[in-house]
Amino acid sequence: MKAFLDKDFLLQNKTAKRLFHDCCENMPICDYHCHLSPKEIYENKPVTDIAELWLGADHYKWRLMRSCGIDEEYCTGSKPNREKFEKFAFALQYALGNPIYHWAHLELQRYFGIGDVLSAKTAADIYERANSQMAGGAFTPQNLIKNSRVSYICTTDDPADDLQYHKLLKGNDFGCAVLPTFRPDRALNIELPGFVEYISSLSSAAGVQINSFDNLVSALYARADFFNAVGCRVSDQAFSDVPFKEAPYVDVNRVFTRALSGGAISAQDAEIYKTAIMAALGEKYHSLGWVMEVHIGAMRNNNTAMFNKLGADTGFDSVGDCNFAFKLSRFLDGLCKKGTLPKTILFNLNGRDNDVLASMLGNFQGSEAESKIQFGPAWWFLDTKDGIERQLRSLGNYGVLGKFVGMETDSRSFTSYARHEYFRRILCGFIGSYVESGMYPQDWEMLNEIVRGICYNNAVKYFNFE
Amino acid sequence: MKAFLDKDFLLQNKTAKRLFHDCCENMPICDYHCHLSPKEIYENKPVTDIAELWLGADHYKWRLMRSCGIDEEYCTGSKPNREKFEKFAFALQYALGNPIYHWAHLELQRYFGIGDVLSAKTAADIYERANSQMAGGAFTPQNLIKNSRVSYICTTDDPADDLQYHKLLKGNDFGCAVLPTFRPDRALNIELPGFVEYISSLSSAAGVQINSFDNLVSALYARADFFNAVGCRVSDQAFSDVPFKEAPYVDVNRVFTRALSGGAISAQDAEIYKTAIMAALGEKYHSLGWVMEVHIGAMRNNNTAMFNKLGADTGFDSVGDCNFAFKLSRFLDGLCKKGTLPKTILFNLNGRDNDVLASMLGNFQGSEAESKIQFGPAWWFLDTKDGIERQLRSLGNYGVLGKFVGMETDSRSFTSYARHEYFRRILCGFIGSYVESGMYPQDWEMLNEIVRGICYNNAVKYFNFE
Amino acid sequence: MKAFLDKDFLLQNKTAKRLFHDCCENMPICDYHCHLSPKEIYENKPVTDIAELWLGADHYKWRLMRSCGIDEEYCTGSKPNREKFEKFAFALQYALGNPIYHWAHLELQRYFGIGDVLSAKTAADIYERANSQMAGGAFTPQNLIKNSRVSYICTTDDPADDLQYHKLLKGNDFGCAVLPTFRPDRALNIELPGFVEYISSLSSAAGVQINSFDNLVSALYARADFFNAVGCRVSDQAFSDVPFKEAPYVDVNRVFTRALSGGAISAQDAEIYKTAIMAALGEKYHSLGWVMEVHIGAMRNNNTAMFNKLGADTGFDSVGDCNFAFKLSRFLDGLCKKGTLPKTILFNLNGRDNDVLASMLGNFQGSEAESKIQFGPAWWFLDTKDGIERQLRSLGNYGVLGKFVGMETDSRSFTSYARHEYFRRILCGFIGSYVESGMYPQDWEMLNEIVRGICYNNAVKYFNFE
Repeated sequence: MKAFLDKDFLLQNKTAKRLFHDCCENMPICDYHCHLSPKEIYENKPVTDIAELWLGADHYKWRLMRSCGIDEEYCTGSKPNREKFEKFAFALQYALGNPIYHWAHLELQRYFGIGDVLSAKTAADIYERANSQMAGGAFTPQNLIKNSRVSYICTTDDPADDLQYHKLLKGNDFGCAVLPTFRPDRALNIELPGFVEYISSLSSAAGVQINSFDNLVSALYARADFFNAVGCRVSDQAFSDVPFKEAPYVDVNRVFTRALSGGAISAQDAEIYKTAIMAALGEKYHSLGWVMEVHIGAMRNNNTAMFNKLGADTGFDSVGDCNFAFKLSRFLDGLCKKGTLPKTILFNLNGRDNDVLASMLGNFQGSEAESKIQFGPAWWFLDTKDGIERQLRSLGNYGVLGKFVGMETDSRSFTSYARHEYFRRILCGFIGSYVESGMYPQDWEMLNEIVRGICYNNAVKYFNFE
Repeated sequence: MKAFLDKDFLLQNKTAKRLFHDCCENMPICDYHCHLSPKEIYENKPVTDIAELWLGADHYKWRLMRSCGIDEEYCTGSKPNREKFEKFAFALQYALGNPIYHWAHLELQRYFGIGDVLSAKTAADIYERANSQMAGGAFTPQNLIKNSRVSYICTTDDPADDLQYHKLLKGNDFGCAVLPTFRPDRALNIELPGFVEYISSLSSAAGVQINSFDNLVSALYARADFFNAVGCRVSDQAFSDVPFKEAPYVDVNRVFTRALSGGAISAQDAEIYKTAIMAALGEKYHSLGWVMEVHIGAMRNNNTAMFNKLGADTGFDSVGDCNFAFKLSRFLDGLCKKGTLPKTILFNLNGRDNDVLASMLGNFQGSEAESKIQFGPAWWFLDTKDGIERQLRSLGNYGVLGKFVGMETDSRSFTSYARHEYFRRILCGFIGSYVESGMYPQDWEMLNEIVRGICYNNAVKYFNFE
Repeated sequence: MKAFLDKDFLLQNKTAKRLFHDCCENMPICDYHCHLSPKEIYENKPVTDIAELWLGADHYKWRLMRSCGIDEEYCTGSKPNREKFEKFAFALQYALGNPIYHWAHLELQRYFGIGDVLSAKTAADIYERANSQMAGGAFTPQNLIKNSRVSYICTTDDPADDLQYHKLLKGNDFGCAVLPTFRPDRALNIELPGFVEYISSLSSAAGVQINSFDNLVSALYARADFFNAVGCRVSDQAFSDVPFKEAPYVDVNRVFTRALSGGAISAQDAEIYKTAIMAALGEKYHSLGWVMEVHIGAMRNNNTAMFNKLGADTGFDSVGDCNFAFKLSRFLDGLCKKGTLPKTILFNLNGRDNDVLASMLGNFQGSEAESKIQFGPAWWFLDTKDGIERQLRSLGNYGVLGKFVGMETDSRSFTSYARHEYFRRILCGFIGSYVESGMYPQDWEMLNEIVRGICYNNAVKYFNFE
């Protein structure tokens, strides 16, 4: 019987252990997609309470607590930190199978050197010990990043953002490039309130008057050039469903100008608009040599009462089930046939769609990069041992696992780098089992190259970071 | 090599064995959803032929036989019982991987003390031995329930039912509360033949004249109050797809009154009607403190010729593939934002939808119960070792496994309690593997609480049975 | 640790080894669905270059190479064979998890006696050794078929085909019946260019003037009779989505005659037409005692630029995600209620639909055959260890695994029979694990019958080949 979370956690055989400990355990991290705040990184204020660190903004943990019937006051409410922490510890005990159980204990071990199991009984003691360590001010964003050996961080930024903190963070001395990501969701969400105001702020940021779809594209292109100058190499796009409905320019422009003048936008009109803007953006990303990330399948803000109370990203999103294979194919083909398909990473949130994505890649590969079209790592709800293994298996079956760009955290937390360790252990466990069951040769040179590639090298090469 | 179906069946390691044998093997059973007949329980007539017991009404077994090319005469037809039993035994031999193989042998061991393997060769002998045991009249419903340690049975009942047998069964001496479940399917199926007649019988039962949607709701509420007085704590609803289309009362009422006057009901009208009635019923369930069960995804009566010959529930249903995430979210949110969302158990029939349900729960939890919104156990076609493990894994990944209300049989058979044992073994195997691979601490106090909770205690607490 | 691809490859325990080596390793092969060319089999020209053998027409391998960023010139282009082979070997190294890794090495071992691992380092040497063996002209289609112990091959043929090579191959001396399969895709694809021309060629082949839907059916029936006379026992049909929209004859005929006169055909019209023709064809297949194969879910020719350059079947297809349960049910029921449902094998390409198909079978079984309705083996993208195991598990859970007709290659390659070995090893591994974990008795007589049935005997019986 293996002990809980020992040094060989998730490493079931010798090959897995050797792969992890000898090949990748100490490699740097390329976190090419996350939601960290560049401002917080720059300002570098220490966190001094583990309840603040863990429960201040983590909707994963809030959901877990709510699932145990714990009152909202202990999640997002005003209860004392100590009580929140104890409630969380209580709930955690029942979460056998949940990755938060592992993440939390990995963080306790790696960042606090606390090897105890967190439970209702140990919560008060661990709270004290953790906070006494944090009291000295050592838990700053920059320290946490540096100690986690993070070389690259790609944050998530609006095209209208001035990127002032990214600029200020250039040439920092904590050894990590903090780069922006171009995420134009608000420019796409033509059907949502606030669109007109957003276009106005985009216009200001770009110095481009926007009164037609062409102007809009010019403004976005200007912002993309600006982002590129500040070091951006990645764009990101979230779709609950993939839009694809082609229309002539005149129709696209009519939809856009109607929205600008406050007119109502039907679902079909929104799809026409989004299709046109994604085609234009994809072309730009391609010309800049950027990577286009596409995150598909979240169903957001399901709980109206809580949305009205707490806003977005507070733990009320879940997994959607739209069928998107055909439209995604048409979107990618539209760019490909014009020769403007950028390097692309496709992410799904519903594990049932692994086959669709893993096989979609092969339709659009090209010689610009090894695995130009990538199947993104298991993400958000899928960021579990099962989800990660399923993604590795799908990609292995349908594509070329050895060229995978590997893990990113998608996180808002400075201690979430433990998830890279989690991923690496699962990866090494997966490959170790595969090799020891006689399904791949014990060729250490290749295995080392593959594992180190997936853990770091492939991403750095793919994103042109070096 | 493990022997077939020995005492450690499905228990692959020491932790699993200890969890099963020490923690849950002898716990009582809370069968909170089944299709047993309260009349049969009350009348308590013994069954005296194992072919009658097994093949008299079990569409699972009929399907298995048909899949081996066995003539219908041996399934639902008039062939002698002995021949039916022998044909079943023949077919069973080839059903490696099918849960019926395990259920049948568990039943032979537990109810008949017969440890032999059932096959074409042994069928005649086993038929004799089983029937000789049954000859004395010991195989009565009440004996089978009592010997299976069943504490709670929730049957499935129409709102117009007078529940006379539930009343007669109150204070019985076989140690089991037999409670009704409010299942208003016929009140929802406005588009099916017989709707008008059904509303008439509902009107009589409720003593409420029904000539508007409001009257209808009043009648259903009256019946819910009556069910509640007889001990009902659960409602149940089957959806092939989840309906959700909101409309003003005047439209809902127009649809309903048109149906009452025999008018044609379009698919869209039916959806409007069902949306309104589910909103009204959900509110009532909430006010009564009931649990609302929702079973999603069966595609029924696929074989018209056999439906015309044998009617419903004869083995011609299968797994549907509708996408329901969005409408289910809207249905639950509609109740939630009014503060009228009852405790809810969501069941899917297509395993591909596990991610959708397991993540949906978290959107609507509340402090009224631990895991107020539950992911129902693997059900019907999913009630297999693989299906159960997948459900446990999904729930573990996305929710809080330790607060799961666990298994129910959904069965029409008095010996199907072997499926609770099957579930418990699989659960202990699942947790045992998890613990022994170092993924959860060897904390026996917590493991005992979790396992006993899932097997019985959580359900009793959740349904307010004690 | 098991060595890579040794004699017990994929056989993890004693039962698995015994099942494979003693029961099925040397059984003949019934390849009841493939895309081999009867002309090539008849002409029997030797292949003399392994690059030609492997990379001449294999879109699986091209995709793998493209996924490593290898230029198209090395896939379908004009680069020298040696260089193509070396590029393939380079890419293969990274394809841990991909079945091509196993297929390629199995082929090297079985057809060339080369046990080395293929890699960038060994490519040149292996290329020489393989080609020196091929130089003598021994690698003819007929030799490869004979040495692989193939007893039956069902090719894939258009109804208008004259089947001259099938006729010429009758009574051949390489021990294999090469039979045609009736695949009327072009007669169904009313919405695609070339339909009118196709109907004209069908008219000529059948000697039937086609100016109405009735004539068309007569022509197809005549061709089916002709195919039957040449030995055909199987039809095949590919659907991206399953069409089902019933309409009166007059409407069907109107759609067809409009198409004949060059009129535009809407998606709805196409569905009406396809529904009618499938109903008519199914009836014919039934009357001939044929098996109807239905392959569901490929999304084809996704890359327009490459389609324009290379045409179809060049590696730009992927997995679709249409929901087809309801329409498939209606299609099968339509035939079943008229008593004209033929034996049917249902194949899905998206693994998420396993539950739908595996449970659909049970709706329409009959006493004409053991498992009259079959769940086809994991196919194309699913033809992986994971895909095969998932199909076996689904079929086992929902149906009767022991009556499964087993594997076919769906291949265009004369060395793809290694995939039957791959399947058999996975099957024996699957059953071996099941038995050794105590889930099925160690009854060697039954296990032998089941394994030999799935590997060969069931198919021969099901297709009435003997």
